[in-house]
Order: sequence, then structure tokens, then C-alpha cells
Amino acid sequence: MSRLFMFEKPLGMRDTLPELHDAKESVRSSIEMEMKRWGFQFIETPALEYYETVGMASAIQDQQLFKLLDQQGHTLVLRPDMTAPIARIAASKLYKEQIPLRLAYSANVYRAQQREGGRPAEFEQIGVECIGDDSVSADGEMIALAISSLKKAGLEPFQLSVGHVGFVNELFLQILGNEERARELTKFLYEKNYVGYREHVHSLPLSSIDSQRLLAFLDLRGGPEVIGKALELVENGKGRDALDELKILWEIIEDFGESSRIKFDLTIVSHMSYYTGILFEVYAGMIGFAIGNGGRYDKLLEKFGKTTGATGFAIRLDRLLESLGDLEPPEPVTCILFSPERRKEAYQMAAEKRENHERIVLQDIRAVRNLDACSDAFANVVFLVGKEGTQ
Amino acid sequence: MSRLFMFEKPLGMRDTLPELHDAKESVRSSIEMEMKRWGFQFIETPALEYYETVGMASAIQDQQLFKLLDQQGHTLVLRPDMTAPIARIAASKLYKEQIPLRLAYSANVYRAQQREGGRPAEFEQIGVECIGDDSVSADGEMIALAISSLKKAGLEPFQLSVGHVGFVNELFLQILGNEERARELTKFLYEKNYVGYREHVHSLPLSSIDSQRLLAFLDLRGGPEVIGKALELVENGKGRDALDELKILWEIIEDFGESSRIKFDLTIVSHMSYYTGILFEVYAGMIGFAIGNGGRYDKLLEKFGKTTGATGFAIRLDRLLESLGDLEPPEPVTCILFSPERRKEAYQMAAEKRENHERIVLQDIRAVRNLDACSDAFANVVFLVGKEGTQ
Repeated sequence: MSRLFMFEKPLGMRDTLPELHDAKESVRSSIEMEMKRWGFQFIETPALEYYETVGMASAIQDQQLFKLLDQQGHTLVLRPDMTAPIARIAASKLYKEQIPLRLAYSANVYRAQQREGGRPAEFEQIGVECIGDDSVSADGEMIALAISSLKKAGLEPFQLSVGHVGFVNELFLQILGNEERARELTKFLYEKNYVGYREHVHSLPLSSIDSQRLLAFLDLRGGPEVIGKALELVENGKGRDALDELKILWEIIEDFGESSRIKFDLTIVSHMSYYTGILFEVYAGMIGFAIGNGGRYDKLLEKFGKTTGATGFAIRLDRLLESLGDLEPPEPVTCILFSPERRKEAYQMAAEKRENHERIVLQDIRAVRNLDACSDAFANVVFLVGKEGTQ
Repeated sequence: MSRLFMFEKPLGMRDTLPELHDAKESVRSSIEMEMKRWGFQFIETPALEYYETVGMASAIQDQQLFKLLDQQGHTLVLRPDMTAPIARIAASKLYKEQIPLRLAYSANVYRAQQREGGRPAEFEQIGVECIGDDSVSADGEMIALAISSLKKAGLEPFQLSVGHVGFVNELFLQILGNEERARELTKFLYEKNYVGYREHVHSLPLSSIDSQRLLAFLDLRGGPEVIGKALELVENGKGRDALDELKILWEIIEDFGESSRIKFDLTIVSHMSYYTGILFEVYAGMIGFAIGNGGRYDKLLEKFGKTTGATGFAIRLDRLLESLGDLEPPEPVTCILFSPERRKEAYQMAAEKRENHERIVLQDIRAVRNLDACSDAFANVVFLVGKEGTQ
């Protein structure tokens, strides 16, 4: 084990310096305000949860969990997402099964990283969960709220890709015959590895019609016309139900006046294994990764003893800030440099300016080694030094 | 190892439900705003730090640290306080030694608890650090900012107790002769165990004059007259320097117009072993524990390779909220219940009301099992159901 340099931080851990901190705060606050206006209630859950309860209910891979032992010998995890903790709290305390519950959060989540220079191991998600509503209206609300939140954050342009896990599962099961084979093919979609997908399809002992169906599936991306094309690929039942949901969803998003923001992409599946229905991803500009994602997870609450539908989404604040580009310049700060004789005068001047919403540093001049550095560091410098009136 | 009930949380871990969440947010935001007006810049540091660097620099006892191993075999800790991480970041990146640095944070810290029903193992601190300023003006600024922040948070009444670790150390060293004996006696002050302190003093082989000095020390609490009494107890040097600092501090707080808020209490020492000079604790009403505390820590930055004075304070948000008493009632939320025929009308009504800063839930009526429950859950309910105009 190498000796650590005193300033080192653990793999994937980052500091947030003032300028970025203020930008994060401003974006977070716009989004939170919008979520509140949509009637969502914010809650907070602990950073540490039991592995046996929330850790195992979460869909994050085991090797990405930060684990530790408590003094009773239980394994704890740093929460890898917020959906599982909110499912715990909703199932145990808040959800009364009479009317749907709308909860929101902004919280850091933790995912251990394997390599230096890679992804952050701690990042902030802002998200909502609507629990106890299995209507497509709730799916549409999630998409509309995601759009509205990102508009309030000042993001432009951005697009949402919308898919349906139920459709993919049903199509693959119909053609491939069992879940293991379906999962194997789905893995290529997770990885967005379409070359690998095609090769895998060609390697399968399928009729040329079925092979063609699986290849045509990759083209199910675009406007509402995609639903018609998809209908030609599925034979019956659940696959058609999924497409009916997407059709209603399209109408809902049209009623919200936001259908120009969405494209169908039926090849979307998520790394979150708990999704069961409509799901979506948010993309902005040229940035290649999703800024946010969400979807329906009707089975997760069963792990906490409640059978009810649920849907939600989360925005990754770090990626959103990257998409927003240049940060706003920090607010100007004035520094009042004072000597003891004029201390009281300095305090009074500072108090007045602060009441007037100005940002004022009060600085005893004896603690400043370099007065020129003050001019560089502050927008304004005021000297209150020596006897009054002698400045 | 017992099997866990699915809703259980680790020892000392708590959920924050909506009403308390909103109250926390409102108080946090008032305090943050005030700290910014005083020119402090907010930063964020990672939840996990190396034990070898920040973990060991922190003053929290080893058994209170949450520890885990990373894949390289290094021990990580969940940050037990924010002062050590900020010292790391200040020493490595921000502090240029030319002008003092003013940083702020609001962050959860983590301290493992031994018993059920006890203290929280995760709690939020809002605090500031002023790095590179060894003037008493900076100590005074910390106290004035603590007072101003708590006033903005709506706390009333509250008081600050102010002491000086340098005075205690010097007095005990003069009388007891070595640091080990001084530490032994100081331990009773940490625990605020004054009966134990007196018994310990009586058990020591001291002249009756020295014994009397140590007992008289316990009475050094009150207004500025305490400084005169304290001067009678110390013979020379560092002890008198400490009292000179307290004298200047009093004048500074008078110039801030806040001397009625503070009392001297020279028996204050802190569990934070890194304090070196003036230190203080905040108390409100009848609540027996400190809502916040702070002080000078001139040696901490040495652990990160910089020699410079520093002072700061932190407010415990959970205790402050407890002192503030009753929470404000949540903002009223209106629920618009719609059926598909009037969906678009509902969306438009919601959009208008939200633009008008109202909080509006949009709810597909088909997902509601109990309409009466809606009346209980929301301040207002609007029905947009059936064909338009048939309501």
C-alpha cells in the first residue's frame, strides 16, 4: 500500500469550488421550485442504509456499492440511488393507498469506480417519484415535469427519447422463446452496442422472418409513426398493450404542448433493472450521455411489502451543468479594509451595505500581507484606516 | 446476526419527512444568504476522505468514525466534520497567503453512535472558516456572524458563551506542572462535570493557594468583569496574552452592537482538540446542548503543510430547528382531478396557476381510490371530469 500524499482524495471523489458550487445551487433551486409547483414534496433519507434492505433492492451492480460493517455485524451501503430508499420510506410511512403520493429529492448518491480519471463516485441527483399511480397520465406527467424543470434550469436545446421496456421484453420473448436468451440480446441494448446486436442476431438459429424482425426493431426510432411500424413486429397481447400506452402517452405530451421535445426510441432499455414500462432518457446538444432518465417501476415496492405502480425520474446535476456550459460570473464582493481606530465605522458601513443585499467582507488590514492582492480578489476595496477623516 | 426488518435503518440514521425538510431548507437558506453577504464563499467536499489524511486530522474520536476499505487497500472515512476537509482544500488549492480566505459550507457529517435511541449519526452543519487571519478581529467576526446568522434564522432568545483554550491550558500548566496532569483535569471540563472537577482538585497534592486558584477558576463566568478576576489567577505571559485577546474581543463585539448576547465562560473547552485560542458555544432558551460552536485552530493547517491562523464556527441545523420550535405550516397545494376528456383543459389550468406560484398537483381521477382522501390531503380540489361544461 503506497503512502498517500496529504491532499489526495479517494478515487472518483471531487471538491466543488465556489463558482461551480453557486452554479449548482442556482440550477438546483430552479428545478426544486418547479417540482414543488407540481405538488411534489421533498424528503431526505440517510446516506447509509442496510445492504440487506435498500442495498439489495437497488438496481446498481454489487461491485459499485460502497460497503461497510456496523458494530452489530450488519453490512451497510452508501445509497447508490434514491429510488430504493424512497420506496422504503413510502412503503413504511407515507403511502396510504388512497391517493397517489408525489415525492421529490435532491441528494448525492455513491457508486464506487474502478479506474482513476473516470466517472465521479459521488454525484447529485434531483428527482421525483410518483407512487401509487399506474395510469399513463402519471408517465406523461413525469416527462412533462422533466421538460418543464430543464426549461426552468435554462437548458436549451434538449430532447427526450422514450421507449417501453415491456415492448422489448415481449418482442424478444416471442422470438427467442425464453428469458435467458432475451436477456442476452438485451445486454447489447444496455451497452448501446448495435454492431454487436446485429452480429448476435445473425449468429442465432432463427427463421429469416424472425431475424428480420429483430433487425427491423433497431429502426424503431422517430415520431409517432414508429408505433405503427412496431405494431407490425409484435403478434399479440402485452406487446400491443405497451404500444397502446405509448400512443396515449404521445397524446398526453401533445396536450402538454411538448411533443416536439420527444422522440420514440424503442431500443432504450436501462441499466436500472427495476423498470417495467414506459421509460425515457434526456439528451442535450452534443453531449453523448443522458442528463437524466426515468420510467415506470411497478415491482420495486413489492420488495417493501406493497403492491402498487410507481414512476419517476432523476436529473444528474453534474451533467446538466456541463450541458449548460459557461457559468455565470460570481456576484461582486466589496472588501472593507479597516484599522482598529475605525473598526466601528467599518462595521456600521458593512451592516448597511449587507442590508442592501451587497456582499461585504470586513477585513482587519493588519492581517493582509499584500494590498494589491485585495484589488485582484475583490470587485471593490474600501479603506477605513487611521484616524477618522484622514483617509 | 439477526435478520433485519425490511424498513429498518442503521443506528442513528433518520429520514426527514416533507414538513421538516421544508423547515430545514428555509432556515438553511436564510443562514447561507447571510454568510454570503459577509463575503463567505460556499464549497463542497466529498463525503469520503482518506483516513490517513483528513480522517486523522479531524478531532473526532476514532470509534466515532465510519470506516471502509477501498479497492486499493486504503482506509476511507465518511467525513466526521467539515473543518479538516476545508483545511485540506484551502491548503492545497485556495489559500494564497496574501489575503485571508473566507469559506463556508452546509454539509452532512457522520459520527457512528454506540447506542439505539441516542444521537443522530448523520447531521447537517452550516459553518464558515476564515483562514489566514490571526487577528482578534477575525475571532470577533466569527461571533458577530454567528449572531447575525441565527437572528436571520429567526432564533430568539439565544446567548453565546465565550472562552479561551489558551488561558485554560496556561493556568493548568502553571499550577499542575505538566501537560498530562493538565489534560486529566481538563477532561472534567470537557464533560462539564464540575463536581468531579472539584473532587479531583481536592485530591491533588497542591498548596491551598493553588487549590483555591483552581476552584476559583470555575467561577470565571459572566460579563467583562471576569477578565479582571481571571488576571488575579494567572501569573504571567501566555495566560495574560489570552486575557488581553478577550478584552479586545469584548470591545469588538461592543462595536458590532452585540455585547448583550455574550457572556464569558472561561471553563469552556471543546471536544474538538484542534482549538488553540478564543472559542465559543451558542445556547438557546432551555435546550441544554450547544446549537453551534466555533473557535480558533491555528495548528490544523500545519497538518496540510501550511502555517497560518484560522478560525471558524458551525451551527447544527437539527438542534437549531429544535430550538426554533413549531414548524411553519406547509404551503397549500391544490389538486386538479381530471378525466381524459378534459385532460388538456386541466393541464392548461395547472400551467397558469403554477406560473402564478401556486402549487398544483395534476391527478388522473382514475388512479384515485378514495376521493374523500383527496379533500383531506389537499387544501383545494378542482374537478375537471366528464365532458366539458358538465361538471
